[in-house]
Amino acid sequence: MRNYLIIPLLAFALNLTAGDNDSVVARKFFNEELLHGKSYEMLDELCHDIGHRLSGSEGAAQAVKWGEAIMREYKFDRVFLQEVIVPHWVRGAQEIARIQRANSDETINVPICALGGSIGTGKDGITAEVVEVRSVEELTALGEEMIKGKIVFYNRPLDATLINTGAAYGGAVNQRHKGAAEAAKFGAVGAIVRSMTTKLDDVPHTGSMKYDSVGVKIPGGAISTLAANKLSELLAVEPDLKFYFQMNCETLPDVKSYNVVGEIKGSEIPEEIILVGGHLDSWDVGHGAHDDGTGCVQAIEALRLFKVLGIHPKRTIRAVLFMNEENGIRGGKKYAELAKQNNENHIAAIESDAGGFVPRGFGIKGTEEQVSGVVAWKPIFDDYNMGQIAKGWGGADIGPLKDQGTALIGFRPDTQRYFDLHHTKEDTFDKVHKRELELGAAGMATLLYLLSEYGL
Amino acid sequence: MRNYLIIPLLAFALNLTAGDNDSVVARKFFNEELLHGKSYEMLDELCHDIGHRLSGSEGAAQAVKWGEAIMREYKFDRVFLQEVIVPHWVRGAQEIARIQRANSDETINVPICALGGSIGTGKDGITAEVVEVRSVEELTALGEEMIKGKIVFYNRPLDATLINTGAAYGGAVNQRHKGAAEAAKFGAVGAIVRSMTTKLDDVPHTGSMKYDSVGVKIPGGAISTLAANKLSELLAVEPDLKFYFQMNCETLPDVKSYNVVGEIKGSEIPEEIILVGGHLDSWDVGHGAHDDGTGCVQAIEALRLFKVLGIHPKRTIRAVLFMNEENGIRGGKKYAELAKQNNENHIAAIESDAGGFVPRGFGIKGTEEQVSGVVAWKPIFDDYNMGQIAKGWGGADIGPLKDQGTALIGFRPDTQRYFDLHHTKEDTFDKVHKRELELGAAGMATLLYLLSEYGL
Repeated sequence: MRNYLIIPLLAFALNLTAGDNDSVVARKFFNEELLHGKSYEMLDELCHDIGHRLSGSEGAAQAVKWGEAIMREYKFDRVFLQEVIVPHWVRGAQEIARIQRANSDETINVPICALGGSIGTGKDGITAEVVEVRSVEELTALGEEMIKGKIVFYNRPLDATLINTGAAYGGAVNQRHKGAAEAAKFGAVGAIVRSMTTKLDDVPHTGSMKYDSVGVKIPGGAISTLAANKLSELLAVEPDLKFYFQMNCETLPDVKSYNVVGEIKGSEIPEEIILVGGHLDSWDVGHGAHDDGTGCVQAIEALRLFKVLGIHPKRTIRAVLFMNEENGIRGGKKYAELAKQNNENHIAAIESDAGGFVPRGFGIKGTEEQVSGVVAWKPIFDDYNMGQIAKGWGGADIGPLKDQGTALIGFRPDTQRYFDLHHTKEDTFDKVHKRELELGAAGMATLLYLLSEYGL
Repeated sequence: MRNYLIIPLLAFALNLTAGDNDSVVARKFFNEELLHGKSYEMLDELCHDIGHRLSGSEGAAQAVKWGEAIMREYKFDRVFLQEVIVPHWVRGAQEIARIQRANSDETINVPICALGGSIGTGKDGITAEVVEVRSVEELTALGEEMIKGKIVFYNRPLDATLINTGAAYGGAVNQRHKGAAEAAKFGAVGAIVRSMTTKLDDVPHTGSMKYDSVGVKIPGGAISTLAANKLSELLAVEPDLKFYFQMNCETLPDVKSYNVVGEIKGSEIPEEIILVGGHLDSWDVGHGAHDDGTGCVQAIEALRLFKVLGIHPKRTIRAVLFMNEENGIRGGKKYAELAKQNNENHIAAIESDAGGFVPRGFGIKGTEEQVSGVVAWKPIFDDYNMGQIAKGWGGADIGPLKDQGTALIGFRPDTQRYFDLHHTKEDTFDKVHKRELELGAAGMATLLYLLSEYGL
């Protein structure tokens, strides 16, 4: 009987030692990053030397070169590109929009931006009366009689009472994504949508939209929240006012681009891979700093910390800068396709694509066992104020790995500030806080370490 | 035997109901605040119409009137002032400082600000060689021979590896607080200190210092962190360089000022009081937005939420805007003195004085029973991402209530950004995030409610 007793006790003792050691390693990552981190400096380069980088753009091509060069500079064991054919949508000259009052010559300028993927309006723009709706259901109930020849104005705000602004965004974004396609079915000539933010200001937020594969295409744009409020107020008293907008966007032929991958080979179980990544492309405004420059530099930094601290992961760890998250996720799809083709075994993938704000924890999309495996490390992360670890969302780029049984892990920063600047000209380097960014990078390195030591 | 079983079961059932209802009330506070809150608007007024407001200043006098007027406007049951005699220190004309190189005529301008309470340097300023130290212990070890006639330069940085920047501040601030007094004992002619921040920039941070009641007084100033690094680098190669600084500050006679108090009377146990407060004074730079405009408006807002939602607290709740936290805590002391004199029973006091950033939770200074009483409500706050509730620091203004058995509760926002702007011209309204501020106000209202319903 004694042996039965000794074995669990021994395991318990070993476990404690392992746990203690894990905390020591975590502390090393955090100390190194907070004292000598490179993530902020990398982000500075990406934002100021390259700037925004929509798929197919010159910025995106430069960003690929930058990502490859910096991973080589940090001497990752292997650095390579994965070819991806991406869409190439361009905004063209600055958009214009105006409210034309019904009972006077007065016009009111409206901050607007085309939605990614939209067709343009032509040089003369579109002028029409406006039908305001809060949802696709309301649009459908109004029907063709009320919609035909008009501009549909989607004006359901984000639900400000939700504490997680990501959930508020999720509850409103279908207006942007399929609003134009749905409005076209009823003969609308254009669609405009209230910007996807809880903030009241004059900054329009771009983002993806999608047409149906069949059916008429009409232009779709986003107007600022203040303009949306103004338009709604005026419509209440002047239902026959007109809206004018002119947009010069178009979709050009697809372009060749790349995912950028850097790897440190596992010392004991190299065939098991743990991925950490963000997306390299951004919308064509601002710097794409929080979306998703921060995710890219945190991923690179996580691997760099292993190198600089001389920590050899047992399993292979990979930093991946995905191309084309914003308008196609073709990089994420290609990555999963190649992983399958090459018989690679990704046990877990971590994505940082919710901004570089102060960390709260991680969300896990996977089996109960995978979720509880990550949740078990909560005490280590509690020391860094990032112990909110629970079942949740992984990430758009890593999503296609789901079929391969990979645990998908989303880095969770605090959400309060993200949608103030998401997809706007305001998403610039100066909005990123150095320590907040670093805490995320060190936290991701710590999770990579635990996954590479113990698997899932 | 049956009765013994039934009673706890019944209590359990009631408890569940109470818990459910508490969550409903919490949700009401948060919804109201996030949709129709006034805290941000109040802070806008305080910052832009009044601005900074050091004790004894015209700004402080205006702020008292503002606080009283707004509490009357919100129709709190009782609004009153408590007279407090406060120090009146003034900065005078802009300070100047320069490094004078040892081997050339070159001088380097240094951003400096006088520490609150310091004497001035006189019109001609002070020029002397510099002795750099990391601590008072190092200063003492050097002794009079090395210090006499020189300027002591305290250059121990905040420990950037601490996740809680408040702890990093706490580990460095004695250099600012007593650096000049200690240096004077060894014959120094002046003291300068590295600014109390982890951020590297050109912004000097003011803050309080204290002279010994006996002994020589020498001027004390803070230089920016970049300037501190530069000075330290130069001293390593040019130990006989000189430092010049000129400051025009002085202490004028004490001035009459006030704490501002607003109250909603308890419906069942009015003699038990729960306080929520911040401090109305600020340093004489920037807007005093995060320090502590946010605490003031959150306290007022917490009571306003009860009024607007028609929630009647069982115990009396009080919003207190304390005067003179920054350089004397005379408002806090006076409040406690009057509470004792009037035989008031403060069962708990909540202070928000760590910035208006996104909430993390609350710290409690009190008996084990008081701590566990508040910790028991953690599940309610977890819904709002502010469930870090544990034994900890209360607040400077409520500190003097400790002797009366009051549980002291500190509101804990995230700490990463606070010391970037603490006590500087950068602490302005635009640095406050509307939703973050509101989440704090609603969280404080929720805790007030729980305390007023159940006591401690």
